[in-house]
Amino acid sequence: MEREFIKICKQSFNSDQITSSENELYRHSHDESHHPSVEPDLVFFPESADDVVNIVGISRQFQIPITPFGTGSGLEGQVIPVKKGISVNFERMNQVIKFSPEDMLVTVQPGITRMGLNSIINKHGLYFPIDPGADASIGGMVATNASGTTAVRYGSMRDQLLDLEVVLANGTVIHTGTKAKKSSSGLHLTGLFAGSEGTLGLITEITLKLHGIPEHTIAATCTFDTPRACTEAAHAILLSGIPILRMEFVDALSISFVNAYGSYGLPEKHSLFFEFAGMQKAVEEESLLAEGLLKDMGCENWAIASDSGERARLWKARHEMSYAFRHIKGMTSTGGDVCAPISKLPHLVDYARELIAESGLTGGIFGHVGDGNFHTIIMYDTSSTDELAKAEQINGRLAERAIELGGTCTGEHGVGIGKRKYQFAEHGAALEVMKSMKQLFDPENLLNPGKIFL
Amino acid sequence: MEREFIKICKQSFNSDQITSSENELYRHSHDESHHPSVEPDLVFFPESADDVVNIVGISRQFQIPITPFGTGSGLEGQVIPVKKGISVNFERMNQVIKFSPEDMLVTVQPGITRMGLNSIINKHGLYFPIDPGADASIGGMVATNASGTTAVRYGSMRDQLLDLEVVLANGTVIHTGTKAKKSSSGLHLTGLFAGSEGTLGLITEITLKLHGIPEHTIAATCTFDTPRACTEAAHAILLSGIPILRMEFVDALSISFVNAYGSYGLPEKHSLFFEFAGMQKAVEEESLLAEGLLKDMGCENWAIASDSGERARLWKARHEMSYAFRHIKGMTSTGGDVCAPISKLPHLVDYARELIAESGLTGGIFGHVGDGNFHTIIMYDTSSTDELAKAEQINGRLAERAIELGGTCTGEHGVGIGKRKYQFAEHGAALEVMKSMKQLFDPENLLNPGKIFL
Repeated sequence: MEREFIKICKQSFNSDQITSSENELYRHSHDESHHPSVEPDLVFFPESADDVVNIVGISRQFQIPITPFGTGSGLEGQVIPVKKGISVNFERMNQVIKFSPEDMLVTVQPGITRMGLNSIINKHGLYFPIDPGADASIGGMVATNASGTTAVRYGSMRDQLLDLEVVLANGTVIHTGTKAKKSSSGLHLTGLFAGSEGTLGLITEITLKLHGIPEHTIAATCTFDTPRACTEAAHAILLSGIPILRMEFVDALSISFVNAYGSYGLPEKHSLFFEFAGMQKAVEEESLLAEGLLKDMGCENWAIASDSGERARLWKARHEMSYAFRHIKGMTSTGGDVCAPISKLPHLVDYARELIAESGLTGGIFGHVGDGNFHTIIMYDTSSTDELAKAEQINGRLAERAIELGGTCTGEHGVGIGKRKYQFAEHGAALEVMKSMKQLFDPENLLNPGKIFL
Repeated sequence: MEREFIKICKQSFNSDQITSSENELYRHSHDESHHPSVEPDLVFFPESADDVVNIVGISRQFQIPITPFGTGSGLEGQVIPVKKGISVNFERMNQVIKFSPEDMLVTVQPGITRMGLNSIINKHGLYFPIDPGADASIGGMVATNASGTTAVRYGSMRDQLLDLEVVLANGTVIHTGTKAKKSSSGLHLTGLFAGSEGTLGLITEITLKLHGIPEHTIAATCTFDTPRACTEAAHAILLSGIPILRMEFVDALSISFVNAYGSYGLPEKHSLFFEFAGMQKAVEEESLLAEGLLKDMGCENWAIASDSGERARLWKARHEMSYAFRHIKGMTSTGGDVCAPISKLPHLVDYARELIAESGLTGGIFGHVGDGNFHTIIMYDTSSTDELAKAEQINGRLAERAIELGGTCTGEHGVGIGKRKYQFAEHGAALEVMKSMKQLFDPENLLNPGKIFL
């Protein structure tokens, strides 16, 4: 017998807005993480904020959980409907609502992806620079406070936001900010919804700051003998004040995997990837200064890519790191996402290497060292629960060490399912405050239950 | 007869930590705004977070309100203890707790001022750039989400914060963040306390990001015939992508007042003030590009100040604008602090000029046009309630227009007393959410009651 809430959904929406097809239930059961998949009872495709208000009403009426879904590129299981119910997929709400190049602002629906957005705005000399690798939806990126390779210059998603339209659990629609570039008015809700992973409300509109496309860009790579030498060099670049757009560390093993995956022919050594961007003379000066400083520190294989094809190839290699590890038959991977004060990075990367070596598993290390944020990617045999346990232990010990060093268990992937167990260690007494806020916004625990909080 | 809570305070703290002296009650009754002063019953000088926990306990026990006090340089009456009770002055909690130049971070107590902090860190090549003009306390700047002339590059106070230690109304001490440069862990409380004006908790420790002191700086000024031409030129500079550290508009009347106040000899025309800062070659290129663009737009009196004495003199003039208006005998002033999308600025500045002209009062306009934020400063005779009413009407109409244009009633001064009446117009349904959060954090309404919320 069809459940009552499904019947009401069928009455309330167009037939193509709801589905329980096997394919769609499967697609909405997982993301790109290793967390166990759970299928929703129903997938709903809203086309407006009103649709979202209505589905939230049905959720409340029948006490059915709601889990928002962007593109499914998340890495901590945020979109997995662990309590089943309704998966709300925003892919049809993918429009630019208002583009104001003169104000360097754009208001979008949550389902637009970052590449989709850039394809519309780039011709006006503007770009949205946050780049987590995957072509994630802007809504998903807000919900997890995503960042990526350009955070060292532009910050995380939270730093890009001026206003959010949010549908609350009680059906109220609010705007959290204005279109002004700064404000000291009222309590700051925008930053609170960023990173809240759909646990406080459903985001239906997002106003983002945009940035001018830099006039000139130079990418560069170099290698060092040890991960520590790389992270120390990255630290020196930061302290030098040379402005960088990107600064990434990739260990030798990861380079060898990505070479095998995409025939990039990169030197298979511990590497730093750089991008300098701005006005031409400034960028040329910056890249020269960096080259001098890095060579003084003993770097090898300094290479520059200044045409856009070469640059694109280099960053494609960087972004394919995690896929390079995952495509091997019978194996899958899990990974950490710690972030710590930059001076602690050489130690933390060494520690990650030790943990991986002790485990006997294969694993790479790469990440956004300009922010003190890096990822481990540990491969394990999908048929071996022992290997998964070992891989998870590495993640756990690394997260704990990062927290001890004043850092965080997640720099950009979010809490989702996997990082819930570190929330008390990281937040202490503040965790109770967070829980009371969750209770305030979602007293019936219908909005993405089972995420962030254990 | 001495009130019970005062007796308990005397038993709980050293005698020099509490006072009801006439001078101190007066000092804690007002800030730099025109809002009516109210004296507290008692002034308390905490020396530690424990002292703050204890005073919060006494506040709860006797249901006595608490109002935090930094340096009293605020402009919306945030420190005025409108319900009397205890004024908590943080001037003894003014230490650097931990300075980590290698991480470009510093953890301070709230009572340290921005200049006090800079005097400690500048010798390490680092600076804390947020500059609201006054030598405000860092705690006060966090509480109001202050910004100022450098926000166009560095953002507001909220953007500088990694972690806050906060004493909550129930006596719990929490940390809102970590020392990592970015995080996607938990709900984001840091941004919520920034700008909360002491209504949610008392901040006892602040971890700030620091920035490298730019290698080279060039300041410049130029003039135009109309305010509109200035704001249009500012808009063009922003769209050009030339990176600026500061970009300020000052109208001709304000220039004439500051010339009279400090004998600066500036051309008495509508002016733009610029600062370019970074690596030498880049800065020279930027200033040349700006000069060309501004001259194409018809600017006059282009003048450069590249030595540090000249630059300091120029920015001293800019910061003395509001004092220049206030020092005239028998007169005082009130002012607006609107912020709107940058494309709306020419219209909004014109509108401000019209309102001032209609009123028959004297008033200047200046501000941070790179952010779309500007101030009006309207002089009125302290003996005339009619003039005050007219001045307030100008502020009100300007705030309403800014909100209609997608902006905010306060770009950087905060809500305090004066902007409470615009909170619904600006925030709509979100205001109820903010009130419910206030209720959650401070159910007995003891923390700075009468601020933000009517």
